[in-house]
Amino acid sequence: MVKGSSFYTIEWLAEGISMLDQRILPEKEIYNLYDDYEGVADAIKTMVIRGAPAIGVAAAMGIAIAAEKANVGSFDELSDALKPAFELIASTRPTAVNLFWALDRMRNRLSELQDSGVNEAKAALVSEALAIRRDDVEINRAMGRYGAEFINDGDTVLTHCNAGALATAGYGTALGVIRAAVEAGKMIDVLADETRPFLQGARLTAWELHKDGIPVTLITDNMAGAMMAKGMVQKIVVGADRIAANGDVANKIGTYSVAVLAKRHGIPFFVAAPLSTIDRTLADGSGIPIEERSPDEVTHIGGYRIVPKGVPVKNPAFDVTPNELVSAIFTEKGVARADYRETIAGLFEN
Amino acid sequence: MVKGSSFYTIEWLAEGISMLDQRILPEKEIYNLYDDYEGVADAIKTMVIRGAPAIGVAAAMGIAIAAEKANVGSFDELSDALKPAFELIASTRPTAVNLFWALDRMRNRLSELQDSGVNEAKAALVSEALAIRRDDVEINRAMGRYGAEFINDGDTVLTHCNAGALATAGYGTALGVIRAAVEAGKMIDVLADETRPFLQGARLTAWELHKDGIPVTLITDNMAGAMMAKGMVQKIVVGADRIAANGDVANKIGTYSVAVLAKRHGIPFFVAAPLSTIDRTLADGSGIPIEERSPDEVTHIGGYRIVPKGVPVKNPAFDVTPNELVSAIFTEKGVARADYRETIAGLFEN
Repeated sequence: MVKGSSFYTIEWLAEGISMLDQRILPEKEIYNLYDDYEGVADAIKTMVIRGAPAIGVAAAMGIAIAAEKANVGSFDELSDALKPAFELIASTRPTAVNLFWALDRMRNRLSELQDSGVNEAKAALVSEALAIRRDDVEINRAMGRYGAEFINDGDTVLTHCNAGALATAGYGTALGVIRAAVEAGKMIDVLADETRPFLQGARLTAWELHKDGIPVTLITDNMAGAMMAKGMVQKIVVGADRIAANGDVANKIGTYSVAVLAKRHGIPFFVAAPLSTIDRTLADGSGIPIEERSPDEVTHIGGYRIVPKGVPVKNPAFDVTPNELVSAIFTEKGVARADYRETIAGLFEN
Repeated sequence: MVKGSSFYTIEWLAEGISMLDQRILPEKEIYNLYDDYEGVADAIKTMVIRGAPAIGVAAAMGIAIAAEKANVGSFDELSDALKPAFELIASTRPTAVNLFWALDRMRNRLSELQDSGVNEAKAALVSEALAIRRDDVEINRAMGRYGAEFINDGDTVLTHCNAGALATAGYGTALGVIRAAVEAGKMIDVLADETRPFLQGARLTAWELHKDGIPVTLITDNMAGAMMAKGMVQKIVVGADRIAANGDVANKIGTYSVAVLAKRHGIPFFVAAPLSTIDRTLADGSGIPIEERSPDEVTHIGGYRIVPKGVPVKNPAFDVTPNELVSAIFTEKGVARADYRETIAGLFEN
């Protein structure tokens, strides 16, 4: 559990990996226990856990538990036994690059352990997963400190989806910036888009900010423009699922619309994301794979059908916001601004 | 029932006023019967019936049924007896100007009947309400013919909310344009925004187009921008609840965001509305009253709570799209284009 928080997103316990089931918040606060990697993969796929950094932590823990449970006698057998785990977990969700980043980190750690005994290697992989989790909270706090300087006392900050404690190992990316601003003594109001279809804003952002006593008001996604037109929004901060080398940002569906509206109204549009969200192999956002999820997420809410049977629906989970609409990207190493190609490269050289 | 349609929005029957209950579509297709004006007022307020032109028809029928039921012996008594009906119905919904237009038309008709007997006056008011209903369908067909010329064979047309048969006495305003294009032999695909919080797009537009065999695909409101960015939208047509003399358009919340996105992507943004939706007493959109509806519409869907208790929500039912974002306004008398102040005035002079 993160200091000062009354809940956690994901924890490594003696019995297995515990995750707060984000599909049933805010109605119920239930923690699920996973004691094999197949369960972890399913939890990622079905969005028990979501949010790019949290997916990364879950992926790493999935590999760690696969290692711990592997009935093997040698390093080579362990390495072979982990292949299906790497494969299955990599197949769960295509857009958030933190998933692949975390798997790569676990794979690299594994390759360093060639000369270790099996038990030593297993322990080292568990350690690595825990380090990824621990690092994530520190990264969010550092990012929050950089971002908070861009938020003024008295601002109403609009956010989309949930880039909070629930999307990370704790503290949050976009909501981490808001938490840091509040910790710095600024009065901040948050306007949260409900974020259809999965309702991360209504169910998760509203829940965690309300729990922390940070004033939050909920709107439907299509109210954001009207709020901006009325002068009720001073800043926008969102998270990211993958950022290309040129600063194009893939994030939850609807982010692009918010960015276009922000541009029209001259409202700064900020993105908060760790370096692990930046995919430097992609020159721009056009190469980012966009996950299409099940129609059921759109056609049903809480088991209640809202779309007539037989009507097709679309459900792209993300969209891409071009860099020209992004005022700045907050990372744990500092702030990137246009020209992003240069400033992003610079952050990696630090 | 309108020719070629398998349902109706509102009908004057011997037993009373029958309305399709739009709150429970598409799950159930149930017609409610109202035999007093209080019931009609409640049906308008609670959105059993909605859509600016349909609200106008309901308001007129509400006055007609109040007249029919009035236990009076003279014209003056009838006139007095109708005052609370005019007052109550006028208080139901503030934004759609067709409500006030229809009440004015009924009031004017009443004033012409001063020298009539009571029964004659009652019958004349019922006639007037039926004429408003009949006129509405003709108006929509005329509007559809004007608008259809702006829609090309093969277009995908995005629409927001429901400006269809269900929002009118039949045929529809925005969907009337689409129906007219289809009747003219054009292949049209419709992309419907679900339109939170009341879900008129998901529940009503998808339902009536699917029923009519016009291809419709549903998206959440926040997907519209991504669809435009991918080149999947060629035209946008929406209805209106009130249009100021300068062409500023009040319509369902979210319309403004769609218009801003359309501008960015160079996609024509059309509004279809009868002249009764144009409020020439207002110089621009800033004077249009915007209804704030109950938080429950945002916090609950089908009885299922999606927002944590204690979190405040906003629920403005409409927003205002400035005239510079509107490519053309289709009316029953022709097409208004910038400069709207002139072209709108011209339509009223025809």
